[in-house]
Amino acid sequence: MRVIELAAAGVDSLRIVEKPTPKPAAGEVLLKMKAASLNYRDLASVRGAYGPSQRFPMVPLSDGCGEVVEVGAEVRRVKPGDRVATLFFQNWIGGGPALEAISTALGGTLDGVWQEYVVLSENGVSKVPEHLGDFEVATLPCAALTAWRALVVEGRLKAGDTIVAQGTGGVSIFALQFAKLHGAQVIITSSSDEKLAHAKRLGADHLINYKQRPEWAKAVKEITGGRGADQVVEVGGAGTVVESLKAVRIGGHVSIIGALTGLTKDIEIRLILGGNLRVQGITVGSRESFEQMCRAIALHKMKPVIDKVFPFAATTDAFAYMAGQQHFGKIVIDFAA
Amino acid sequence: MRVIELAAAGVDSLRIVEKPTPKPAAGEVLLKMKAASLNYRDLASVRGAYGPSQRFPMVPLSDGCGEVVEVGAEVRRVKPGDRVATLFFQNWIGGGPALEAISTALGGTLDGVWQEYVVLSENGVSKVPEHLGDFEVATLPCAALTAWRALVVEGRLKAGDTIVAQGTGGVSIFALQFAKLHGAQVIITSSSDEKLAHAKRLGADHLINYKQRPEWAKAVKEITGGRGADQVVEVGGAGTVVESLKAVRIGGHVSIIGALTGLTKDIEIRLILGGNLRVQGITVGSRESFEQMCRAIALHKMKPVIDKVFPFAATTDAFAYMAGQQHFGKIVIDFAA
Amino acid sequence: MRVIELAAAGVDSLRIVEKPTPKPAAGEVLLKMKAASLNYRDLASVRGAYGPSQRFPMVPLSDGCGEVVEVGAEVRRVKPGDRVATLFFQNWIGGGPALEAISTALGGTLDGVWQEYVVLSENGVSKVPEHLGDFEVATLPCAALTAWRALVVEGRLKAGDTIVAQGTGGVSIFALQFAKLHGAQVIITSSSDEKLAHAKRLGADHLINYKQRPEWAKAVKEITGGRGADQVVEVGGAGTVVESLKAVRIGGHVSIIGALTGLTKDIEIRLILGGNLRVQGITVGSRESFEQMCRAIALHKMKPVIDKVFPFAATTDAFAYMAGQQHFGKIVIDFAA
Amino acid sequence: MRVIELAAAGVDSLRIVEKPTPKPAAGEVLLKMKAASLNYRDLASVRGAYGPSQRFPMVPLSDGCGEVVEVGAEVRRVKPGDRVATLFFQNWIGGGPALEAISTALGGTLDGVWQEYVVLSENGVSKVPEHLGDFEVATLPCAALTAWRALVVEGRLKAGDTIVAQGTGGVSIFALQFAKLHGAQVIITSSSDEKLAHAKRLGADHLINYKQRPEWAKAVKEITGGRGADQVVEVGGAGTVVESLKAVRIGGHVSIIGALTGLTKDIEIRLILGGNLRVQGITVGSRESFEQMCRAIALHKMKPVIDKVFPFAATTDAFAYMAGQQHFGKIVIDFAA
Repeated sequence: MRVIELAAAGVDSLRIVEKPTPKPAAGEVLLKMKAASLNYRDLASVRGAYGPSQRFPMVPLSDGCGEVVEVGAEVRRVKPGDRVATLFFQNWIGGGPALEAISTALGGTLDGVWQEYVVLSENGVSKVPEHLGDFEVATLPCAALTAWRALVVEGRLKAGDTIVAQGTGGVSIFALQFAKLHGAQVIITSSSDEKLAHAKRLGADHLINYKQRPEWAKAVKEITGGRGADQVVEVGGAGTVVESLKAVRIGGHVSIIGALTGLTKDIEIRLILGGNLRVQGITVGSRESFEQMCRAIALHKMKPVIDKVFPFAATTDAFAYMAGQQHFGKIVIDFAA
Repeated sequence: MRVIELAAAGVDSLRIVEKPTPKPAAGEVLLKMKAASLNYRDLASVRGAYGPSQRFPMVPLSDGCGEVVEVGAEVRRVKPGDRVATLFFQNWIGGGPALEAISTALGGTLDGVWQEYVVLSENGVSKVPEHLGDFEVATLPCAALTAWRALVVEGRLKAGDTIVAQGTGGVSIFALQFAKLHGAQVIITSSSDEKLAHAKRLGADHLINYKQRPEWAKAVKEITGGRGADQVVEVGGAGTVVESLKAVRIGGHVSIIGALTGLTKDIEIRLILGGNLRVQGITVGSRESFEQMCRAIALHKMKPVIDKVFPFAATTDAFAYMAGQQHFGKIVIDFAA
Repeated sequence: MRVIELAAAGVDSLRIVEKPTPKPAAGEVLLKMKAASLNYRDLASVRGAYGPSQRFPMVPLSDGCGEVVEVGAEVRRVKPGDRVATLFFQNWIGGGPALEAISTALGGTLDGVWQEYVVLSENGVSKVPEHLGDFEVATLPCAALTAWRALVVEGRLKAGDTIVAQGTGGVSIFALQFAKLHGAQVIITSSSDEKLAHAKRLGADHLINYKQRPEWAKAVKEITGGRGADQVVEVGGAGTVVESLKAVRIGGHVSIIGALTGLTKDIEIRLILGGNLRVQGITVGSRESFEQMCRAIALHKMKPVIDKVFPFAATTDAFAYMAGQQHFGKIVIDFAA
Repeated sequence: MRVIELAAAGVDSLRIVEKPTPKPAAGEVLLKMKAASLNYRDLASVRGAYGPSQRFPMVPLSDGCGEVVEVGAEVRRVKPGDRVATLFFQNWIGGGPALEAISTALGGTLDGVWQEYVVLSENGVSKVPEHLGDFEVATLPCAALTAWRALVVEGRLKAGDTIVAQGTGGVSIFALQFAKLHGAQVIITSSSDEKLAHAKRLGADHLINYKQRPEWAKAVKEITGGRGADQVVEVGGAGTVVESLKAVRIGGHVSIIGALTGLTKDIEIRLILGGNLRVQGITVGSRESFEQMCRAIALHKMKPVIDKVFPFAATTDAFAYMAGQQHFGKIVIDFAA
């Protein structure tokens, strides 16, 4: 079978290698992969951003859709023919984050899913809503679950709340969709009026072009009658976090999810203290949360937003496209192309 | 001013008396009442169902809409001209239920709002969404807040959940509306196909006529693929509670809200134990929850369902109509009629 | 190896059979068992109380202490030589109760630990505090975790709270110990002054002999200055549940854990409703909670209370002793005797 | 009566003025003050650190113990002769933080308690444990409640947890005491071996002199077997917050309470993100939490730690002493001296 392997840091070090198709042991399943999706974390990882602790060679990508083609002994959760998503953390079943759980990330600690067949524990896959196509399923494991955990599990979203999502990447668009499902009001920030218009068509209630309004927290305060947002889904990092802290209400919730614009920032502690804010770091979530999320997606026949699909071997093109940051929604790899 | 007073137990003991218009002291507000609504608790109370502890004479009704016409010294929360709802518990500001809070119920421990003018603490009123008419505002303090606390505050409703509401009284219809706002799936039970059809028009996803299907928990299990509902809003009491315990999923939530069909029931403890169920008694809620709820109602321009409006003095007619249990939604008193 | 098997309903149907020692597959561990403990649930199960759904033959007992003597491929959580407890639910890793988790009980759905060697998934065992002896470790999986989940996980125990534990069985004594660790005040009920005196030596603050004081909820109210207890750990079932509902404060928490005196009871719904009570069914808990609990036990070098130890083959004697209800704390089986 | 008033920014601008004794209106109480305590926030406030928004003249100090000597009409919570604490936020009754609640701070938005008599709303005082002396009562409103809310209300402290408290100021010593009540393990950091020895006598389990060990997070990791602390009570601000983020476990909780060493700090967002940390701003808490806390203090006859007592008029001396940072525990003002 064909496997995409990262031989060393750098997008150019991705190569196709041939390996024998693996066999599932007891408790394991063999998946024929149909599709995968890219997350910003994959780009960072392929570029070697995680430093000396990174392993080489490694197989990238955490988020896949596959069909179960064979199961080992004692497997009970799925059967051959089932379509499943691969879970970002192979061993975060339920409950809070813990070292044992978050040290089992596909495409990180463990080899990822950019291979034609992959063997995983039955605990590391979940059945998925039927109305979704394979490409759509492949968008769920990281970006969708991150948005769900931020807003719903940790943030306890409820109807009438106001949330701010930054930009139009995968997590932010899922945050928009989930917030609308829960009857919340959504404010989207972006530097592109075109992307803002697109977000509006997906249900965004208020749009802020942060190039025109760099102090966008003030705009959030205006929209909310001075009160501030209940939650901000913070993906920007250094370039946005201070505005995020200013944009939420007394007692508001800021989910720290990404750091697209840098990892280190001078933070005024007074904002957290005086606002009685809750700042919560979020790296994806548990299988229990994934299954909750899938029930919501299934009930509403919600469709993930896919920007562009690349063929299996288009490694350089796919990452170059992501690096260009022109996408709106998810970038997908089609394993049949 | 005219006041409706209950001289002794019995609907016939309601009478109109004339009293001087009261004056607000420091921290108090004088309301000119516009409308009130009836709850089943008021019928029970007027009938003397709360036993020897009941005071006579007393002024019934907790749920009103009034205009602030005068404020005492130090009042900060409202000003003359504001339209407000009267809060069921005058002293449950926020946090959990406590004796100090729940012993301050209007139309119970304290005289109610069936009077042309009423003086309350500024803490006992809240401003209300602008899109609502006075009759609609008057439906919120007890029934709407009870449904909100059950589903949202205690039950932590989220999109994709399934909830069961029993019948089509005030609390159940609000539960239907709030559940839909949060992206939940709603099952309504009733003995009337006509009422079920009405509930469907309001968004109910599944309908169960419990006359045709007395073991309606089985129907709930079928609808949910064997899993059971996430929450039941239990208002029936003795006649429904056992089915409610059977209808929820492992770890599910049953809100005990009413006892229309009786207060005492043989309960199989095994259902609670084996199901790891949470059974939560709910009597209305706090001002903090009321304000949360109003934000959701305002954002969605949600309209409470009013069944029928009676004039100020139609005491006997209004309660007879409620006792007939033919209503769908709320019964309102128009203070201008 | 020797295995205790239940051939049919009835304590007399327990027999010793000889079976080959099993081998661990991938992800599994082989334990040499050192000790086990009995729970009331085992007595009920051996008597056939779970009705037609029960399997025969089956191996009883969920709670064991064993040494890892061999591990299959891919095992990471433990290594040979580690001492572990067997987890009651083999597949409740973390998060809330769910069907998938609670249908994996040892000595129930799955064969139990009353065998000289047992093979389990590595997920189904946990390392244990070093200061505990093997007998003590064997008391933790069901009774201790049930008390911990009731008070700490669901009940959110805090210093200054008052809790009521009924009698002096395993769960109640652990509840006493855990409550004292958290700085709570503990009231113990029993029909025996001798047992009450023993509970006092373990730290109980207040003692109620319910034979002398059948309306013991009134005694709880007196002790708490009229307020009521914050939590009751309800193990009695039909004979105690109504007093439990009366004994807690407004907004209090009743954990439904057992039904020693019967499963069906006429319950006054008004008590739950008027008190805004939370009634929570509890069947044991997750591995995540078990590990939390073990950290508390280790920090305090807390010692479980063992009443009596029986040898491996003393099946009839051990269950007869439990049925006599004279024990205080746990009944243990010594696999080396 | 004598009142201490701050005429302008600066400790030297504190002066004694004579005012008429006030009268309580409806819903209000008149307190004869017995004692007050100083918080670091008072020093900052007197120095004018809150900038142009500060009012002059103003009466400093939030934390007092007084005797109710007269009550206005409609007062129900207290009666003449009751001894009460003055609540930091006069209008945060229960529930989460909100603008309406946190804009009612004594010695801030509102005049404080450094006056021989003070009139407050009955909602702004609480009865206190009997075993405490007046000086001890005066230490509770800000420092104790801040520690309680951080650890217990937001942090959900449980037995077996490990917490880190920084230094030996009021909040940190209360955190030490409350953590020990709950069966947690406590690590104290300080630059003084003498203060560390004192903390050990109060029950601290582990001591870190951060002068000798500037990277004290590593010491916390060693003490906890590599896991990290469950909670850090962060009072240092710029000089300590990064170590605090490093010292907690995956999913750990950092309460942002103070900023003794500066308000602005370069924060590595990666620490919050990768650790899935929760960073919670804490400014004191609600009356509901205060009453919870008092139940714990009363049950355990817990004694606040008082460092030094100054007479009513010793304004300069008291603040100079606080600024010297040699204290261990609370600095109190005796109104009778």
